[in-house]
Amino acid sequence: MQVIRKLPVSLPRDRGTIGFVPTMGYLHEGHLSLIRRCRSECDVTVMSIFVNPLQFGPGEDYDTYPRDEKRDLEMAEKAGVDYVFMPDVQTMYPRKPLTKVSVSKVTERLCGASRPGHFDGVATVVTKLFNLIRPDRAYFGLKDAQQVAVIRQMVDDLNIPVTIVPCPTVRESDGLALSSRNVRLSPEERKQAPVLYESLRLAERRAAEPGMTVGQLKSLITEHIGTAPLAVIDYVEVARFPSLETPEDGVPLSEELANGPLLAALAVKFGQTRLIDNILLGERA
Amino acid sequence: MQVIRKLPVSLPRDRGTIGFVPTMGYLHEGHLSLIRRCRSECDVTVMSIFVNPLQFGPGEDYDTYPRDEKRDLEMAEKAGVDYVFMPDVQTMYPRKPLTKVSVSKVTERLCGASRPGHFDGVATVVTKLFNLIRPDRAYFGLKDAQQVAVIRQMVDDLNIPVTIVPCPTVRESDGLALSSRNVRLSPEERKQAPVLYESLRLAERRAAEPGMTVGQLKSLITEHIGTAPLAVIDYVEVARFPSLETPEDGVPLSEELANGPLLAALAVKFGQTRLIDNILLGERA
Repeated sequence: MQVIRKLPVSLPRDRGTIGFVPTMGYLHEGHLSLIRRCRSECDVTVMSIFVNPLQFGPGEDYDTYPRDEKRDLEMAEKAGVDYVFMPDVQTMYPRKPLTKVSVSKVTERLCGASRPGHFDGVATVVTKLFNLIRPDRAYFGLKDAQQVAVIRQMVDDLNIPVTIVPCPTVRESDGLALSSRNVRLSPEERKQAPVLYESLRLAERRAAEPGMTVGQLKSLITEHIGTAPLAVIDYVEVARFPSLETPEDGVPLSEELANGPLLAALAVKFGQTRLIDNILLGERA
Repeated sequence: MQVIRKLPVSLPRDRGTIGFVPTMGYLHEGHLSLIRRCRSECDVTVMSIFVNPLQFGPGEDYDTYPRDEKRDLEMAEKAGVDYVFMPDVQTMYPRKPLTKVSVSKVTERLCGASRPGHFDGVATVVTKLFNLIRPDRAYFGLKDAQQVAVIRQMVDDLNIPVTIVPCPTVRESDGLALSSRNVRLSPEERKQAPVLYESLRLAERRAAEPGMTVGQLKSLITEHIGTAPLAVIDYVEVARFPSLETPEDGVPLSEELANGPLLAALAVKFGQTRLIDNILLGERA
């Protein structure tokens, strides 16, 4: 495995398809599942590790975002990554960047509403990474479903020659979605955090009930999260996927699902730690 | 010569470097000079012809922008272009685009101030064309000096793997900068239009006078344009190049020029036709 810290990024362009797994490091099984998928589909596997300041707002956790370079490199090596691109901030942003890639509509609800500018930062850094790595395929976890929707929209709109491969969320045995931020949960918060996925599974089971509306489904989720005393809801939303348009509360779910899948998505804070999760309803198998 | 109208754009990627000349068609000697430069430096020459609706504001001349597909193709063929990419609007924008590439600062003055959104449209379509063509080098005329500054900034900021080659403005024998829009000038407007370059040359000659300030230079240009009765000034500016920051009027030119080149730039309307021109002062030869 080769570690690249400076530009240019020199990769072998004659050894077949290049697969790319962009990450912010502090690797967990979710990242490893992306690497496995990438290795099974591509000839060369490139991972990037970069905590991108551009996608953190003021007061967000850029400074305290968990980092462990040594452990990450060991895990990447063991997972069979061929190249790790691990730039510092100065390498990625040698001057104050004046250029921004922004996606409208898809970024207006859910995390986009709670974190203004976040998805501009994501779209901009992903564009930079795609230009540096020039991969054939890039792998993203569906835990960040809105991120997947934003990047697909951007790739379509800008004719970026990369195939986006969305991959399923990986979970702990009690259902908690893997996240680098989970390490920040206190023991009691950790104990309560599985309520998020429980509420989404509850929504999934009850989505088919006759007469169930979008608003009722959101209420079910909200109420179930309320059973965890430490949970503070940021948002609970039901949105069309991948457009992320949000239907009116009164609309029957069956009507919506006839037109395509819906994303039930939530963001909940436990103490200082903001967790997100989601589930796709009515997805064709 | 091969004409490509639909996606994907298939180009030979094993025949050496690919050079790219993006245009809005209605070709003139300025475009041909870009093609010649491209052919002398690259193995494959690709030209695009696309009048990009995104970079025209409401009330601007998108509908009346001069077009002549047949003549353009004949000229491109004769000039030795290998591939012409000539998409229709539906091919470039199959859906309403939600993604925008925008550059701040560099776009705020000069044409950016007169044409809000123009450079977002330019940056976005150039990003799309670069992603479709994937050239090694791309050729732009310095008549659109701000466009060159914007695209260089964008390429730097987004790590786009393309070398931008700025090329000198080509002029009629009386000094008028070549532009597809020149055909729209009435005989009398055409007769007066050389006043633009005259005023810039005057500025160039007098820039070295002791005590000359930025403001005085702008006044000289403005006054000389005033000698043409049909000329209506949109702007006359002196700006640092390529940052396009504009120094205060009272600053001595000599002081500014010690720090780098200055761009004297103007936009002037003759009837419905808006012409731009510029000259670089203090450029190192």
